[in-house]
Amino acid sequence: MYELLKGLRVVEGAAFIAAPSCGLHLAQMGAEVIRFDAIGGGPDYRRWPVAPGGDSLYWEGLNKGKKSIAIDLGRPEGRELAVALATAPGDNAGLFLTNYPVKGFLSHEALAAKRADIISVRVMGWADGSPAVDYTINAAVGVPQMTGPADDERPVNHVLPAWDLLGGAYAAFAMTSALLRRRISGEGAEIRIPLSDLAASSLSHLGSVAEVLSAGDRPRMGNDLFGAFGRDFVTADGRRLIVVAITPRQWSGLLKTLDLGDAVGAVEAELGVSFARDEGLRFIHRARLFPLFEAAFATRSAEALKPAFDAGGVTWGEYQTLHQAVTTDPRLFTANPLFETLTHPSGLSYPTSGPAGTLANEARGPVTSAPKLGQHTDEVLAAVLGLDSGAIGRLHDEGLVA
Amino acid sequence: MYELLKGLRVVEGAAFIAAPSCGLHLAQMGAEVIRFDAIGGGPDYRRWPVAPGGDSLYWEGLNKGKKSIAIDLGRPEGRELAVALATAPGDNAGLFLTNYPVKGFLSHEALAAKRADIISVRVMGWADGSPAVDYTINAAVGVPQMTGPADDERPVNHVLPAWDLLGGAYAAFAMTSALLRRRISGEGAEIRIPLSDLAASSLSHLGSVAEVLSAGDRPRMGNDLFGAFGRDFVTADGRRLIVVAITPRQWSGLLKTLDLGDAVGAVEAELGVSFARDEGLRFIHRARLFPLFEAAFATRSAEALKPAFDAGGVTWGEYQTLHQAVTTDPRLFTANPLFETLTHPSGLSYPTSGPAGTLANEARGPVTSAPKLGQHTDEVLAAVLGLDSGAIGRLHDEGLVA
Repeated sequence: MYELLKGLRVVEGAAFIAAPSCGLHLAQMGAEVIRFDAIGGGPDYRRWPVAPGGDSLYWEGLNKGKKSIAIDLGRPEGRELAVALATAPGDNAGLFLTNYPVKGFLSHEALAAKRADIISVRVMGWADGSPAVDYTINAAVGVPQMTGPADDERPVNHVLPAWDLLGGAYAAFAMTSALLRRRISGEGAEIRIPLSDLAASSLSHLGSVAEVLSAGDRPRMGNDLFGAFGRDFVTADGRRLIVVAITPRQWSGLLKTLDLGDAVGAVEAELGVSFARDEGLRFIHRARLFPLFEAAFATRSAEALKPAFDAGGVTWGEYQTLHQAVTTDPRLFTANPLFETLTHPSGLSYPTSGPAGTLANEARGPVTSAPKLGQHTDEVLAAVLGLDSGAIGRLHDEGLVA
Repeated sequence: MYELLKGLRVVEGAAFIAAPSCGLHLAQMGAEVIRFDAIGGGPDYRRWPVAPGGDSLYWEGLNKGKKSIAIDLGRPEGRELAVALATAPGDNAGLFLTNYPVKGFLSHEALAAKRADIISVRVMGWADGSPAVDYTINAAVGVPQMTGPADDERPVNHVLPAWDLLGGAYAAFAMTSALLRRRISGEGAEIRIPLSDLAASSLSHLGSVAEVLSAGDRPRMGNDLFGAFGRDFVTADGRRLIVVAITPRQWSGLLKTLDLGDAVGAVEAELGVSFARDEGLRFIHRARLFPLFEAAFATRSAEALKPAFDAGGVTWGEYQTLHQAVTTDPRLFTANPLFETLTHPSGLSYPTSGPAGTLANEARGPVTSAPKLGQHTDEVLAAVLGLDSGAIGRLHDEGLVA
């Protein structure tokens, strides 16, 4: 972790990926993030993947470095405790992160009644409050229909919850942005970040909304890179590499490394085009280009190609499984300084990532594992709410905390 | 746009998606974002999708609300101008966003020599500086191998540049976080955000790294939701809906709406399990459950199911193409208050999104289109560098700006 956000206290009442990953980003940049959950765990407490013993690897991945307090949220006194945590005083507190419904006991209005300058960041499904998850939104915006081989009509869901991940990082940006304003003006804010709006706005930002209005839906095209040159190819030894050439330099490096300059030049002469000057033409005429590349890959081994690609400045990647990557790829996992091997609440020890961003020339603090559920209940009640041991004991006796 | 970041000045020297989308998020939250490009445009200036006239819809989507200055970056004097912009004085300036190489004329060291407290946020390909794009990193971390139908072995690339989008939002979070620290301590920072580290850390956060070490690679499973109940089903009228049931309430609502309680209960009795209590069992035994759902969908129309699902609290979505969504879906596009119809540099008018996050109860400012390349060259030279009209004229005469 780093200490960019040292001193901040964020309270998280959330579940699943988007909002908890926001809390994770904040924690890994130094904020104190206090997550409250129902006693026994929230709806994500058993979410797969799970360890052989049944503990959720997902939960312990998304809650690294947080403090955990367990509260009976079904009773009014428990709900009051959650509200008291979110609205506790302090210039560096009053920061609440949630995916609870807009209305209800954790509404912004209810919190702002206790603390006028509270900042609440609320990740939602649909903007109108209807339930949605990453995969249902993704179906509605048409990504699965664009994905997969052209010879198959079935829509292909993504397996990476891209909208959730984007929502978590965007929520962290929203939280810190609202705090920058509060430090100047004193104003709080409620920022709502629906997955539906993340998807709609992203497809606007990428030009895809304009594209479909101008040219209709983009057809499925397998692994072909849209609008430039890129695809997967199989090598002589049966490995699969992806190469991408968008810039002139990427293109010239690729041709040179594969010794395809003459063959591609012949196609250019025949068609009267310059692939070097216009990346889009490489896409339009890809049916002419791909066979040349397939043949070039089919006569070269991956082990010969990889250093040649690196020397030639080619942008390439090898298809590998995640297990291969985790166990053998030094740049991604086995020698990546982001990772430390930690023991987690599941009892398993495995390499575990700190923040994605690296502060150059600053010490990289330790990676911290997730808490056990309720591990910090007493500490949080004492430190944030100022309760003494007698009061904390009574809350335990009444079953309001665990 | 909103004004959370009003008064900040960010200089962007970048191309493609990740870093420019960071600048876009900052601009749409109120920062002044000045993007410099080479005269004639950078390597992303013609990137597809393009308008019928050839202008890039991608470029004008990713650069909305920014100011544009065009500089001859091939000459030392032009490079000095870019450095001067990035390092110009002001408490709310000295914020630089880039995907230029770590070493070179826009290195953090070079900038910090001019302004010690500069914050530079640098999106990269591989962490070691090797070239990579979203799709080559994605191949290396194994996502394409997990994606797509179980009856097809070909890896399936995602079409949504998820790592780029995540990188943009995370970079915006990094920028604001570093500014929060600078306002307290006065320190600058260089934050490097490689796509390779975004991917590796995300797969750690999601529990996937632990999963493959514990259980091996996850097999391909088409559109089946991992670890709970979810898949696409075809209705009596040939429409395709996705339903997801992770929580007990989602599951009970789904069974009730489809009148499947008895049939599923019979499977539970036969297997001696409770699907209501353990979402993972719904996944393990999905081959027993799916035929019941297929039959239930096959006898109901989408028009009957959709209101019933809403009434029953079911989490569902309809597969539609992006064109269908853009032209007919009020929640995503046609009545979404994020969108305004604007005319862009391409000459096309189309619905265009403001920020994904909504500040409840605050006025939503106008959505702003992208600049024309170099539209603000003179304005920026005067306002940021304090050049008078004579000096600006000389830069034009020398071909250093356009």
